[in-house]
Amino acid sequence: MKQEKIELKKQFPSSQRIWVSGEDSDIQVPFREIQLSPTVTEEGTTVNKPVLVYDTAGPYHDTSYTVDVQKGIPKLRTPWIEDRNDTLEYEGRKIVSLDNGFKSNNHKKFVETPFKYQPKKAKTGQNVTQMHYAKQGIITKEMKFVAKREDVSPEYVRSEIARGRAIIPNNVNHPESEPMIIGKNFQVKINANIGNSAVSSSIEAEIEKLVWGIHWGADTIMDLSTGKNIHATREYLLRNSPVPVGTVPIYQALEKVDGSAKDLTWEIYRDTLIEQAEQGVDYFTIHAGVLLRYVPTTVDRLTGIVSRGGSIMAQWCLAHHEESFLYTHFEEICEIMSRYDIAISLGDGLRPGSIYDANDESQILELKTLGELTAIAWEYDVQVMIEGPGHVPMHKIKENQDLADFHCQEAPFYTLGPLTTDIAPAYDHITSAIGAAQIASYGTAMLCYVTPKEHLGLPNKDDVREGVVTYKIAAHAADLAKGVKGAQQRDDEISRARFEFRWYDQFNLSLDPDKARSYHDETLPAEAAKVAHFCSMCGPKFCSMRISHDLRKHNDLKEEGLKQKSEEFVSKGSRIYR
Amino acid sequence: MKQEKIELKKQFPSSQRIWVSGEDSDIQVPFREIQLSPTVTEEGTTVNKPVLVYDTAGPYHDTSYTVDVQKGIPKLRTPWIEDRNDTLEYEGRKIVSLDNGFKSNNHKKFVETPFKYQPKKAKTGQNVTQMHYAKQGIITKEMKFVAKREDVSPEYVRSEIARGRAIIPNNVNHPESEPMIIGKNFQVKINANIGNSAVSSSIEAEIEKLVWGIHWGADTIMDLSTGKNIHATREYLLRNSPVPVGTVPIYQALEKVDGSAKDLTWEIYRDTLIEQAEQGVDYFTIHAGVLLRYVPTTVDRLTGIVSRGGSIMAQWCLAHHEESFLYTHFEEICEIMSRYDIAISLGDGLRPGSIYDANDESQILELKTLGELTAIAWEYDVQVMIEGPGHVPMHKIKENQDLADFHCQEAPFYTLGPLTTDIAPAYDHITSAIGAAQIASYGTAMLCYVTPKEHLGLPNKDDVREGVVTYKIAAHAADLAKGVKGAQQRDDEISRARFEFRWYDQFNLSLDPDKARSYHDETLPAEAAKVAHFCSMCGPKFCSMRISHDLRKHNDLKEEGLKQKSEEFVSKGSRIYR
Repeated sequence: MKQEKIELKKQFPSSQRIWVSGEDSDIQVPFREIQLSPTVTEEGTTVNKPVLVYDTAGPYHDTSYTVDVQKGIPKLRTPWIEDRNDTLEYEGRKIVSLDNGFKSNNHKKFVETPFKYQPKKAKTGQNVTQMHYAKQGIITKEMKFVAKREDVSPEYVRSEIARGRAIIPNNVNHPESEPMIIGKNFQVKINANIGNSAVSSSIEAEIEKLVWGIHWGADTIMDLSTGKNIHATREYLLRNSPVPVGTVPIYQALEKVDGSAKDLTWEIYRDTLIEQAEQGVDYFTIHAGVLLRYVPTTVDRLTGIVSRGGSIMAQWCLAHHEESFLYTHFEEICEIMSRYDIAISLGDGLRPGSIYDANDESQILELKTLGELTAIAWEYDVQVMIEGPGHVPMHKIKENQDLADFHCQEAPFYTLGPLTTDIAPAYDHITSAIGAAQIASYGTAMLCYVTPKEHLGLPNKDDVREGVVTYKIAAHAADLAKGVKGAQQRDDEISRARFEFRWYDQFNLSLDPDKARSYHDETLPAEAAKVAHFCSMCGPKFCSMRISHDLRKHNDLKEEGLKQKSEEFVSKGSRIYR
Repeated sequence: MKQEKIELKKQFPSSQRIWVSGEDSDIQVPFREIQLSPTVTEEGTTVNKPVLVYDTAGPYHDTSYTVDVQKGIPKLRTPWIEDRNDTLEYEGRKIVSLDNGFKSNNHKKFVETPFKYQPKKAKTGQNVTQMHYAKQGIITKEMKFVAKREDVSPEYVRSEIARGRAIIPNNVNHPESEPMIIGKNFQVKINANIGNSAVSSSIEAEIEKLVWGIHWGADTIMDLSTGKNIHATREYLLRNSPVPVGTVPIYQALEKVDGSAKDLTWEIYRDTLIEQAEQGVDYFTIHAGVLLRYVPTTVDRLTGIVSRGGSIMAQWCLAHHEESFLYTHFEEICEIMSRYDIAISLGDGLRPGSIYDANDESQILELKTLGELTAIAWEYDVQVMIEGPGHVPMHKIKENQDLADFHCQEAPFYTLGPLTTDIAPAYDHITSAIGAAQIASYGTAMLCYVTPKEHLGLPNKDDVREGVVTYKIAAHAADLAKGVKGAQQRDDEISRARFEFRWYDQFNLSLDPDKARSYHDETLPAEAAKVAHFCSMCGPKFCSMRISHDLRKHNDLKEEGLKQKSEEFVSKGSRIYR
């Protein structure tokens, strides 16, 4: 791959990456510190403390770091993994042309990556999952890291993971990842999908989307590539990603059989799992709940099967008239996962693709099977999350969370939206943010973003930004509703800045400072307007906030008399008119 | 005003304005008819019936209509109003320079409008409100019109208006309006704010925004102008608006006293009410619930008073140490309203301006007073709605609807969002769409849109489009959740089109066909792609919808055998793995 021309390092204004020590000295947890300007009033100047916010961008937000995508980012977790002394390095699987989508073994055709390493796996008889440690009562460095990130105790993190109610997706072969936790009792997370397709995109573009996505706050990314150089693209992404990377291995397996679902075999799929496990993929979407017997239940749907993985497996089941190999080999899959600590994201291959199909028989049948599979995975101490819909009208959203919690014993729920109406293609980031915020407030742990291009085309950079910021909004709105510790601080600080006409602070505390500032500039570009005690919306005469300040200076309000009178009046029932 | 250069007529692709007869032959109710292409399969071609959707754009969607903003649009309701024989024409109030924001009586300074007419008002002793008729058991033409529009019975419309649970805002001096109804048992409506400010905008721009807003689906518009030529701007808007127009009269009253709140008097305010009543404003926001005694309760707020009207009245109350003249003269206000049939939108002058201030004492005290005022207005048969917040986290939203219903006896609730977090200026159409959809699903009857420029600047055309479409989404999502009759048809039709790869139909049935199509064009611009059985998101190999079609052709699915086996299996509890 040619050296990047694109600028991968991004900064937010008045922000810097800082580190806060965790329980152990080798645990340095990153945050983004936003500097504020002082409050200046007639009474004097008051310093405003900087605000710390959760930061997902890894070294890309570190001013002192030099990006080199050919080298990859630092391997933060390597010493932690090695200290546990339960993995070994081994000669990995050999990469062949087919892994990159080419049939002949002409290696010139596919992109070679510069990354040389031996993969790790569990020593014989060992289980290296975070759930396994948690069940043994061990608090790992990863757990301590996320405890600091979430401002909870390490023991609480351990107990939630042991219980299966939270997961830390982090393959031992992706030591670059900064640990993060997905679970209903933690901050709501968001995932951004990237990946090339047969129709467009390149490795460079995918790395740029990765860094762009995490700059705006994506907590994990999924590489859904289906085109050429799928192995190399994933390798570059993993070596350069500080966030967990998820994939849907059936996509690559299908490429290996030239797109013919009926030619898929358990052996090809298994080999693909190993291939990706050795690269470091942190979670796999596995559509093991699409059973042969469920396929006929989809016939009367308005929009059939809309999950790619689901439709591939349905095709396979019907073609062979056999039960899905993902289901019949599920224990073997779990066994592999436990050697690398890969989390399983149980795919909802039968999710509804329209309001009409929401919460129908197919969907609920599959969900019950996902519950059955969750229990099996947990026997192998494999971390699990459950994928959810899709398209669901608002009044049917809570049922989704409730049924997932019931059937899957509160394993983290990970939904795609849901979209609350079908009538707004080009605005499906919004139709789905409504549903996403709602379902997250009921307990969904991670939200898969939807971009404005959903149903229409592949997202470009602007779409990724719009999708991620929209989903940060949905996640944060749910955090507020759930009362997540400290969540409201950022709201309070930005509102205080707004009320005090600290315009730059208002921009800098927002999810998208550049856009906020540019919108303000459109009507009032002058520097003086950034300290003005009004804006273009109401103008100086009508500025309610300016008036509120004036009101506070009013003598009456300082008089005990009026306040007392007011309380007296209120206590009498607030009626004076009649 | 110089003749418009801007194109005011807009069309949606494959759409035309049609009329459906109401109960009486002189009631012709407009809809937009969207033509669909046929479904073509191996079995043959099936014609798809056109889809009718609610249409707010008036003659601007009528291909045969010639726009002339100097003439105004047809006066649909004039014969209905005159047939009732309870109004008279009279010599209206004389327009002075001050009405247009100029102090001297130099008429050259302000824009003269070409509209010559005598205003109407109720004959002595008459009450001409829709509520008055409804309470007498009279079903008006306006009620019949909205009954057809909403697909309910005219008697139901009458009963909801008599009960105060719905309103039809339509001043007898705005006969151009196509009647629409606002109430929890009808389709959720949206309002778009427009208006110039001291900082920018012109009459031309405001008319363009009006037509642009209703093209995208705004049900009412509010003219919040505060700059020069405020009277003339409003006159142009009313004469050219097929949707009800709302205003906040205190804004103009304040202009008349040069922005000095303490110089406001009941007489100036009353004169402004009459001025606007004679022009035809359909509803007034009146902040009559901001009482002197409530002002001190705002002192400990994070963001004080954020309503312009609220802060103006608080200033006045404190300056005079007197109760608000809006409150003390409320019965006189109702008396005026009843003569023109102007609805009162009781303003929430103490709404919270931040998550921190949501549902606080100030807000709830004012809401109780709005309930008291609602009861008074209803004694005068004046139609009322109640304005609501603002900034509210998701878990506190339902309480707003419940308290409004309780205190104000289910008078239609009309909220601004609410924004569910403060941290995303530049995306507040989204932070608020989440709250708007939620509160509307609980019963809020009309949603005031929020554009991406909220808190930052004045919306331009793009912002109006983005704001209106976003709020159409929120309103429609709530309609689905509430089970509004027929609401799901559009979702079903667009999903069917999507599943059948009728790309143009998918675009044309969407809220924003142009944007949907342009997004599709970005990756697959070729005409052939508009009938292709895949898109750029997954490419042909991974298209789940194509695969779903293939599945349906599968012999097994047609065999009764597999279906039966499937049912048998399901009835046994869907477990085969263990």
